Amino acid sequence: MKKNLTITIGRQFGSGGREVGLKLAEKLGVPFYDKELLSHTAKKSNLGENVVEYYDEKQSIPFVPQSSLFEIYQMPMSDKVFIAQSDAIRDLAAKGSCVIVGRCADYVLRDSENVLNLFIHADMKFRIARKEEVLPGKTPAEVESHIRRVDKKRSKYYSYYTDKAWGDARSYHLCVDTSRFGIDGAVAMILDAIERL
Amino acid sequence: MKKNLTITIGRQFGSGGREVGLKLAEKLGVPFYDKELLSHTAKKSNLGENVVEYYDEKQSIPFVPQSSLFEIYQMPMSDKVFIAQSDAIRDLAAKGSCVIVGRCADYVLRDSENVLNLFIHADMKFRIARKEEVLPGKTPAEVESHIRRVDKKRSKYYSYYTDKAWGDARSYHLCVDTSRFGIDGAVAMILDAIERL
Repeated sequence: MKKNLTITIGRQFGSGGREVGLKLAEKLGVPFYDKELLSHTAKKSNLGENVVEYYDEKQSIPFVPQSSLFEIYQMPMSDKVFIAQSDAIRDLAAKGSCVIVGRCADYVLRDSENVLNLFIHADMKFRIARKEEVLPGKTPAEVESHIRRVDKKRSKYYSYYTDKAWGDARSYHLCVDTSRFGIDGAVAMILDAIERL
Repeated sequence: MKKNLTITIGRQFGSGGREVGLKLAEKLGVPFYDKELLSHTAKKSNLGENVVEYYDEKQSIPFVPQSSLFEIYQMPMSDKVFIAQSDAIRDLAAKGSCVIVGRCADYVLRDSENVLNLFIHADMKFRIARKEEVLPGKTPAEVESHIRRVDKKRSKYYSYYTDKAWGDARSYHLCVDTSRFGIDGAVAMILDAIERL
């Protein structure tokens, strides 16, 4: 592997993108950041961890119900969190190789050459089967509806903060369908791709 | 490789998708169809090869200047060609393993399990460099403009005849950026992916 490589992962909800990232990080012996990014963001900024968590991967929310007139003329908190998170991402990427899931990391690091941008997706059947396990009591139709809702949010968040389309192949270097190759198959293929860089 | 596998390739203009397909077909020892599909379509239908070629990868054109009143009430020729081409694609896929470039082949074969859908893309710099060689006398800006025009046509054609978005990772099993991995790197990665099916 190149001395310093940041692997960013965009992922459909339920596709196993987080698991792919965890396995890649383990095999490569590098740090993994998904929700782990929140404490780094809070530490690096003067924003509380609960604030960072609340606005994590949400598109700009200009007026929240509790806004005072003073706050309306300020930058929305969601944008502040995005900026703080971007700073944390650049900071972690500069420190050494790592895997970062979500948070428009591919866009944040667009000027770096030492980046491999991945998108992990899967067909709905595969994703429902994975999410049914963690959402007991829900019917497959309810699980599907939940999956579509989360993906819609991710897509909106991505297109709001970048000039690119979420899930469009042209935004990534490699996109893999885990329902076709399996989680471990995808991991092996990506490890092989990294060797080719 | 599985006994019968159709590899379909969607590709950005200038990304080397055709070259990737040719190399895959050669390595796998299976037939390759890009423009080669036109004579199969003409043979299988009662449409002339020049008609098939004229309407190849064009979205529906309802009224062409020479339309007679009689023709206006008929199916547009572009749609007839699409249907004839789809028949030819299904026919060739049923005969044995092959590589098919473009022509919404992934969508045409959507009900088949023995399909691997690929999308090949690359950054603009890589594509301009490749196309400058075959478009002598044109400035890089002119080449870029030509590339964008061809891609726009491909995108329109794909979205017209399918319910999917051209270049969206979710429409394919594997998407590879040839400007990041090179043509031969992409071929090797895809051959490896085929072994994993």
